[in-house]
This record gives sequence, C-alpha cells and structure tokens, in this order.
Amino acid sequence: MKSALSQLGRRTEPPPISWLMNLALSRPQLISLAAGFTDNESLPTDFTLEIVEEVMRRPRSGQSALQYGPTPGDPELRELTARRLTDLDAACAPGRRRAYSADDVIITNGSQQLLYMISEVLCDPGDIVLVEDPTYFVYLGIAQSHGIRCRGVKLESDGIDLDHLENTLKALKKSGELKRVKMLYLVSYYQNPACLTTSLKKKRAALKLLRAYEKAAGHPLYLLEDAAYRELRFSGEDTPSALIDRNSRDRLLYTSTYSKPFATGIRAGFGVLPKDIMEIVARVKGNHDFGTANLVQRVLVRAIQSGRYEMHLVQLRKRYAKKAGIMERAMRKHFPESIEWPETRGGLYYWASTPKHAKTGTKSKVFNTALANDVIYVPGSLCYADDPTRRKPDNEMRISFGSAKEKNIRDGIRSLGEVLRAHC
Amino acid sequence: MKSALSQLGRRTEPPPISWLMNLALSRPQLISLAAGFTDNESLPTDFTLEIVEEVMRRPRSGQSALQYGPTPGDPELRELTARRLTDLDAACAPGRRRAYSADDVIITNGSQQLLYMISEVLCDPGDIVLVEDPTYFVYLGIAQSHGIRCRGVKLESDGIDLDHLENTLKALKKSGELKRVKMLYLVSYYQNPACLTTSLKKKRAALKLLRAYEKAAGHPLYLLEDAAYRELRFSGEDTPSALIDRNSRDRLLYTSTYSKPFATGIRAGFGVLPKDIMEIVARVKGNHDFGTANLVQRVLVRAIQSGRYEMHLVQLRKRYAKKAGIMERAMRKHFPESIEWPETRGGLYYWASTPKHAKTGTKSKVFNTALANDVIYVPGSLCYADDPTRRKPDNEMRISFGSAKEKNIRDGIRSLGEVLRAHC
Repeated sequence: MKSALSQLGRRTEPPPISWLMNLALSRPQLISLAAGFTDNESLPTDFTLEIVEEVMRRPRSGQSALQYGPTPGDPELRELTARRLTDLDAACAPGRRRAYSADDVIITNGSQQLLYMISEVLCDPGDIVLVEDPTYFVYLGIAQSHGIRCRGVKLESDGIDLDHLENTLKALKKSGELKRVKMLYLVSYYQNPACLTTSLKKKRAALKLLRAYEKAAGHPLYLLEDAAYRELRFSGEDTPSALIDRNSRDRLLYTSTYSKPFATGIRAGFGVLPKDIMEIVARVKGNHDFGTANLVQRVLVRAIQSGRYEMHLVQLRKRYAKKAGIMERAMRKHFPESIEWPETRGGLYYWASTPKHAKTGTKSKVFNTALANDVIYVPGSLCYADDPTRRKPDNEMRISFGSAKEKNIRDGIRSLGEVLRAHC
Repeated sequence: MKSALSQLGRRTEPPPISWLMNLALSRPQLISLAAGFTDNESLPTDFTLEIVEEVMRRPRSGQSALQYGPTPGDPELRELTARRLTDLDAACAPGRRRAYSADDVIITNGSQQLLYMISEVLCDPGDIVLVEDPTYFVYLGIAQSHGIRCRGVKLESDGIDLDHLENTLKALKKSGELKRVKMLYLVSYYQNPACLTTSLKKKRAALKLLRAYEKAAGHPLYLLEDAAYRELRFSGEDTPSALIDRNSRDRLLYTSTYSKPFATGIRAGFGVLPKDIMEIVARVKGNHDFGTANLVQRVLVRAIQSGRYEMHLVQLRKRYAKKAGIMERAMRKHFPESIEWPETRGGLYYWASTPKHAKTGTKSKVFNTALANDVIYVPGSLCYADDPTRRKPDNEMRISFGSAKEKNIRDGIRSLGEVLRAHC
C-alpha cells in the first residue's frame, strides 16, 4: 500500500541540524558552538515576573491576556511595533522620517512563522526564491518542504553582489524561468550565518533591479528583508530598513522578531507587509492558529511601554559584545593563521573560513575530529542552497557565542583550534 | 501585471465569520451569541500569576521557560499529557487501560495548528476529506485554503450515520474518487456546532469501515478525532477516545487542546499521532515555528502537576453548566414551539433548528432582524461543507453561551425569541 502523504508530506526532510542538537542533548560534556540559542543568563526572568504581576493583578487586563485576541495581533503591540520601527529608522536616517502604520504590522509566532506564511502565499512548487550565498538554513528547510527552488546570490561585505544578482536575473530571463521567480530573500542585519549587514544603498538597488525585471516576470518581484538580528547590534551604527523608501513599500516584506532580543521562549515575531499581501497572510494566520498567544503579546506590550524592553536591550548588547570579544580573542590565540573571519558587530555568530583543502562538512576530518574532542559548530555547507549553477562551498564554519558560557567559549575554541592546526 | 500569489494565496478566502466578529467589536451594545470565546470571568488570572511566580523565582526554571524548547513540545508536558489521556480513557472504560506514550504526543499552537499541519501533510489540492454534516467551520476554512474537497456525512444523536458513511465511500469508489480520500474528520465530543458526542462504538465502526476501503483507495484512510471540547463536559459520563483500541492506533489522529479549558490566550493544543505521521508533522512544525512558546508550556506543566488545572476544570464545568441552564430556560420561555434543539452536555453551544421555511442564513429575515435588534448567532449554513451531492441546510443556528454574561444570555435569547416568533 502506498503512503497517504501529500506532496509536501513526502517531500519534507528532517531539519539538517536536528541530529546536531540531539547530539548536544545526549552528550552533556559536549561544547556546542552550533546552536542559535540565546544566552540563558540574559533571559529577563525578574522583569517578566514583574510584568505578569502587573498584568494579572487587575482582573480586566489579566482576563484580556488569557483570552483570544485579534488574529493579526494585539492592537497595542501592533501600534508599539510600528512606532518603534519608525523611530529606529528615523534615528539612523537623519532628516527623514516615515511613520509606519499599525495596520501594516502583523504579530506571528516568531519571525519563522511569517517566513513560512510568506512562502506559502507566494510560492508554488517549482517557483524560485533568490537567496544569499550562504543563507539562513532554516529558510532553506521551508523552501525544501514547499518544493521551492533556491538560487544563491554572492555576498560582499556590504550585502549581495548586485552584478551577480543582475546576471542571475538575466540568466533566468533567458532560460524562461524568470516567471517562476517570486522574491529575493535577504537576512539584512548581522546576517545568519555570514555576519554582514546589507547597506541601505544595496537594498534600494536590489529593489530597483527587481522592479526592472517585473515586466519580463509578469508579476511583482518582492524583496523579503529578514531583520531578525537587527536589535542584537553591539557595535557600529544601525542601518535603516528598506521600509524607509515610500515607493518601495508595495514590494517590501519586512520580518523581524521579539524572540531573540527578549526571550526565545516567548516566540513572538512581527512583520510589515504591503496591504494586499497582509490581507492574504492574515487569512492564512487565521487558519494556522487564529493569532499568537495573547499572554505573550500582553507581556511584550508592557515590557515596551514601561521601558524595560529598551533597558534589557542595553544589557543584552553589552553581554554579547563581551562574549563576542572573548570568542574573537580565543580565535586569535588558538586558530592557525590560515583561518579567516570577518568582524562581527551584532548577532550571535562568527563565520570562519578554512583554506580550500580543509573541508568542514559533516563528513570532514575537521568536523569529526572536533566532535571526537567534544566541540561542534554548524558546517558552512548546510547554509548553501541546492543551486545547480555552482558547487557548494565546504570550507566554512558558523561558530556561535550565543548560548555557550564564557568558559565554554574559551575551551571550545581552544579544542577547535587544535583540530584546525592539525588539518589546515 | 498578474499577481505573484501562489495557488494557495489566490485561493484562500477570508474566514466566514470575521465580519460577524468585527461587527461585535464595532457595536458594543450588540449581544454576540456567535463567538466561540470562553467565559472571561472563568479565566484563571490568580493561579496563572502564582504559577509564573513559582516558575520565575528559581533562575533555572525561569530561564528554561524563556528559552527555546524541543520542537515537538516540552518533554514534561508531553509526558503529563500522555498520562492524563491514559487516565481519562481508563476512567470511562472500566477494566481496560492503554498507556499512551509521551513520544506519540505533540504540543502545538492550539489544536488549530495541528488540524492545519495534518491537512498539509496528508492532502494535496483536489483531495477529499469526509466531514460531519454540519462540522467545525474553521476546519472548512483550512480545507478551502488548501483546495481540499469536503464531503458531508449525516449525523445521528450518537455520531455519524454509518450507513451514510458507507454509501459515501461506495459512491466515491464507483466514481473513481476514493483514491483522493485521505481521512474522516470527526469533532467527537460535544460537537461544534451540533453538540452531540460520538460513541466509542461508532468511532470503532468508522475505523473498521475506513480500513475496509483502504485497498480500493490504495493508501491508509485516517480517522481524525478532534476532541477539543472533551474537557468541557458538564453533565453525563465521559466517552473513551478511539485511542483506547490498540489496533486503531496506526490510523488514528487525535487532537485536543488546553486552550479552551485553561485559557484561550495561551494557545496550547496537543495531539497523539501514529509514529510515521508524527515524524512528518514534527518536521513541518519545525518549519512553522520550531515549537510552541515554552513559557506557555511551562505554565501548563505546573498547573497540571500542582493539581490547579483539575481544580480549575471543576469550577469551569459548574460555570458552563449554569450558563447552559440559563440559556436553555430562556429558550424554553421565549422561543416558539417550532424551534428544536438537542440537549447539550458539554462545550459552549446550543444548536437550534427552525422550521424549514424559516431560513437563518446571513441574508435571511431572521438573521437580519436579529442583527437590527442587536443580537447575533452563527448561521448554521456556514457549518456545512460545499458538497455538490446535497443542498446546504439553511435553518439552523449555533448559539453560544461561552463568552456572554448571564444577563446578556437572557436578554439575547429574549430578543432572538421575539424575532423567531415573528418569522417561524
């Protein structure tokens, strides 16, 4: 008898790093520099309790937090989100201010759910999404599940290589596949995994380029700006989102999250979408779950209104700056000279390259010797789309300082350094 | 230029009662007997606060509640859920006890998300799901969005009409469409909207019948048992779930929820799935959101472990029993004799039928006069699938005593009674 599964059910593969995560759980002595978890000790237990007390002590606000809310999100949280984003963008674009509207904001279960729903409402199996090379590997999982083909666009230190983007669009037009392209997906701040930030100039140029190919595509080509790490900036200046250009708004899908900066255990993300896409995504959200847990949203409203959220961000940034510094000093001390990594100014990761001959994939000597020595990282090759037009690079590592304790960062990097010195 | 939307994006319609809900928000004097909201005053604000205090006061448990958890759910909550379900079934099936395993349990964002994911992994556009006539209208929305065709099976007072189920399967076999059938969806306790409970005997017989048609279908035919209202029983005995039969387990998809009995604002549901389906659903859950908010799950763990959850259920059942009684007495007093409704022993609704000539749909005189008199219900026709093999009944009303205050129940039913007396 055949299986009763749908095409999607048959297609969906296990996430590439679930075995890594299980490994970490089953071997407590293992130092995981792989997980994208945030720092346990940074989690705001004290003020979460204060807020829940404030919310629950008044019956009316307590009951409202424990009741269903509107599907697109709590109205106050949507308003506060629009206002914060307006202020964030105005602060780094002197002399310009665009006020975003609460109606354009949707609250979701982490930004992950929004990435999922955007993919559902835009892409049929066989459609193409342009992604960064490398990109966020969980997005590749969503794409795989939906039968979406991804094409990688090369990266430079300030974001995608515009020439490569244009050549890719040209080639797709020539091969007749441009009609299948739906969007360009950019992780625009402290990119996961490559740690770079896309300049506003490049985001604008990408939007312009996409617009120029719309006629040939026969439909709008969207820019999906994933700003999940934007708030985890610990040095340098902020960059405006592409939202700031009024004429970009009907093509820009902006996603971000409160989970990483506040607490991953609350699973609350948000997005700003053009009106027509918002309408459809909100319908799909209604089918998914009628709306994100109201309790979590009310906690966030109070955290932001009371100023605690901003205070928490200040602490959090200091904490990650310190941990990034510890990791970088350890890498300088223990890694051989042939290992390179760009500066990290935010987020949770370093992205290190080994010489071409020293592979880092799950079957490589480097990875397996590291594992035998109780330290793991995310192999870079997992962050590249299955793009038939190029070979997948296999000499990079995503190394996270997010959840590891300071001592483990030092010990883990020392162990990894020994392995790298033996193989590079 | 064409739209860039996917087939799903183009297809997905707005939920049928969103305009009703918006109406209720914009006209505060309106008495809504439409919403499936639970009773605001029943929401456990006091003990939710106590629990959050207990969880957050110990840094370790507080941090764990604010951190990511495993995708299929918190291990303790899965264990407690398996154990509770084992006990619930054993309590109403004397002499039999089947212990369910935590590994078979998944925690989701309400049972709604699980209904969504089950549909995603089993059904392609054009596939068929057999549903009750009438059925849960939000499930019809999920089906509509995915291009799933629904076929209605008639109901009797103890669940589906088995002859009609068999005739439907026969007809589908004859027309060559049996290969597109994937499952039978039953809301098995205090059915939404028709308020009846399916007997264990009928669930077994339905499973047997489905099994008999599998060879012709060429694949497994599942029974999806939606037990969302099981805990909201306020009179009579509980009924065992179909899980209790060991040999049914590879075909049974059981879904239920903590949201309705505990608090709709926490959005936590659960399910028990066969191993092969569990594996795929867990992968899809990873793509949706990596797992339900851990904070909410830890609150539930403590609520169940401390016995507060059970204490709350006792209170809740008393409350709904009282409200159901108030509604029934008001209906007896104010409704004309021609209106009929079955007894309600749990859940949040009454399901009332008018004489055939007195339509109740959104364009009917009854509905619009009621609306003009500031009272709304859910028109029964919204709860019927678009099944081309029969005409949609249009002379029923789902009337909810869930969220309305006692005075509003009395006033709402009196107003509705005046309307019905004028038109029936």
